[in-house]
Amino acid sequence: MKIEAVDFFYLAMPQITTEADGSQDALLVRVAGGGHVGWGECEASPLVSIAAFVCPMSHGVCRPVGAAVLGETLDGPADIARITARVAYDSMDLLQAPHTFSGVEMALWDLLGKKTSEPVWRLLGYRRSFSKQAYASQLFGDTSQQTFERAQSARAAGFSAVKFGWGPIGRTDRQADREQFQAAREGLGREATLLVDVGQIWKDDVEAAAARLSDLEAADALWLEEPFSAGALSAYAALAKRSPKVKLAGGEAAHNVAMAEHLMLYGGVGFIQIDSGRIGGIAPSKKVADYAVARGITFVNHTFTSHLALSASLQAYAGLENHRLCEFPFAPKPLAYEMTADHFSADGSGEVTAPDRPGLGIEIDVPKLRPYLQKVEITVNDQILYQTPDLVT
Amino acid sequence: MKIEAVDFFYLAMPQITTEADGSQDALLVRVAGGGHVGWGECEASPLVSIAAFVCPMSHGVCRPVGAAVLGETLDGPADIARITARVAYDSMDLLQAPHTFSGVEMALWDLLGKKTSEPVWRLLGYRRSFSKQAYASQLFGDTSQQTFERAQSARAAGFSAVKFGWGPIGRTDRQADREQFQAAREGLGREATLLVDVGQIWKDDVEAAAARLSDLEAADALWLEEPFSAGALSAYAALAKRSPKVKLAGGEAAHNVAMAEHLMLYGGVGFIQIDSGRIGGIAPSKKVADYAVARGITFVNHTFTSHLALSASLQAYAGLENHRLCEFPFAPKPLAYEMTADHFSADGSGEVTAPDRPGLGIEIDVPKLRPYLQKVEITVNDQILYQTPDLVT
Repeated sequence: MKIEAVDFFYLAMPQITTEADGSQDALLVRVAGGGHVGWGECEASPLVSIAAFVCPMSHGVCRPVGAAVLGETLDGPADIARITARVAYDSMDLLQAPHTFSGVEMALWDLLGKKTSEPVWRLLGYRRSFSKQAYASQLFGDTSQQTFERAQSARAAGFSAVKFGWGPIGRTDRQADREQFQAAREGLGREATLLVDVGQIWKDDVEAAAARLSDLEAADALWLEEPFSAGALSAYAALAKRSPKVKLAGGEAAHNVAMAEHLMLYGGVGFIQIDSGRIGGIAPSKKVADYAVARGITFVNHTFTSHLALSASLQAYAGLENHRLCEFPFAPKPLAYEMTADHFSADGSGEVTAPDRPGLGIEIDVPKLRPYLQKVEITVNDQILYQTPDLVT
Repeated sequence: MKIEAVDFFYLAMPQITTEADGSQDALLVRVAGGGHVGWGECEASPLVSIAAFVCPMSHGVCRPVGAAVLGETLDGPADIARITARVAYDSMDLLQAPHTFSGVEMALWDLLGKKTSEPVWRLLGYRRSFSKQAYASQLFGDTSQQTFERAQSARAAGFSAVKFGWGPIGRTDRQADREQFQAAREGLGREATLLVDVGQIWKDDVEAAAARLSDLEAADALWLEEPFSAGALSAYAALAKRSPKVKLAGGEAAHNVAMAEHLMLYGGVGFIQIDSGRIGGIAPSKKVADYAVARGITFVNHTFTSHLALSASLQAYAGLENHRLCEFPFAPKPLAYEMTADHFSADGSGEVTAPDRPGLGIEIDVPKLRPYLQKVEITVNDQILYQTPDLVT
């Protein structure tokens, strides 16, 4: 089939706050071809990612992402690989391109799966989709009491693994951080898995991070996520050496396979966390999973938005039985939840499984999108390069 | 002083071709404060970089670049460092941010230099600006005869070092590439320095690159530039080990200091090439230069556009006497040349020196910009986020 149309929908909550909650807006991608429709989702900055799809060419290796996709043939995984290679080369100097293409690539897999009546994980070569242990992913409370309560409600909702992220950690002192870690553990009880995410707060300051290790150990945290800037490989490596018990986790910022490989090869992480909405889509995520398997590192998805994004991120490691943990957005904004008609249920057992349904197996709830839809127009020399398209085809 | 205004001007040639010539468009940045004006230039994709300055916030660490700059205080280098750190953290999830901020950061240095009547290199801590050996940077011809002629004209124009890049290299076979290298050497004569840039053509294929090493040695090439994708560190390292004579060069794609450091630390390059219009501006370029000095690696600018960008890229290593080579755009499009009223002359001696004048020392030729100016408008929910501003303040 031919890729006939690629449409972007910028969705946003009425109010956007400065909390580190990526579910406050979304960029949905709809790809149409051969009478089918596929959906994908780009992580972060919808307006900029739209611009990278429609912008005028700057030169031969700074072409808009759209130039590599529209009108192309899509009959099998090799076509997606060909389009991906073209984006990587022809948009080499367009920094935003991988974020834009991530949602497009997901939608291409969804479309291909719907056309062939196969789930994406099977198109990727997996024979089975294994269930994962969903971990409830949420932010630290402003106070340790709030964190304690959030831990309790995640447990009450059936989760046996819970992650707390960002918030006040690293912003005051070690004592305050210790109280937060302790409150999280107390709220969870001794049995549940505790994960801690500090959102790059220490940039490349190994000592600041190392000072918290004993407190993280005392709280029996399985991992410490993103202690440093995404590219601070030496800092990662130095801290990893000093932390035999609490493993390091990172990788969500990877916008290509090489970045994720470097974090494993040079940074010494024990868990590699990939957001298919940033790294260029599902196939690059699968490449990272293969690399992790080969090195004895555990692959984990990074997902803080919709269940469409969750399904997309699950595909890459659906067939890896021993890579068990799965980030599950526990308290997303209504937009991120309402966007899809289908949802993963993680009540009770806390288990989620990439669906055994064609494509990504998640239907979009189109009428529910309308209140969140942002009306965007981009013109260059009075020519309209982008205008929010109709939701109904 | 307060940063009162930041204005972006998208300039483009009437026709944009698919050749790898980055001088076909430009994104000029004008920053105003305290009665002064500073100028900078972002490399690549003007529309997308504008969008990254004005886009609505997605969440706390995906804020528009503008939010970290407008209304801020600028009284010394520490203020630029503070604004830079804020962009790095608050726009962490906005991939295009470093490209956008690069031009802004240059303009901040230019503004600060004009206010304090100091050249930027002195504000960076250098006591002298040493002259550099300009190398004429141009594309390979489609035929080896064209390459031969281009080599001769660069020599006739007074250059003692010449780089050929991209074009047909790696697209046919080894024999064709050898003829190109030979033609370049013959056109230059035995005395001149020959540099070869292959524009990432072999992605991560070490053998394909290694097969050309003996031909590059025979042509006495000083370096082989960008044999692989920017992040293919293992491929760089493997090739570097096999090429004691022809050193590897790379780094132009670095959009943060860490990427450049990795290419030196893990990739084994002998020359690190930094584009201040991509890496986040002048101060990050200087950090890379410091790191290169410490490791015995040679720093080189990457510049293929205007003489404003050339001055900006020179500042970072102006004071390093032994880092002698300087990329000089030999055949830029008229837009890139006409943009500035001041030009570096590299006739005769082929030497260029970062100017001993306030700021970047390059005046913009405002009336000459007008024919190239693109009229852009970006609206979200009928609110105009960007509209091409007036050239005359």
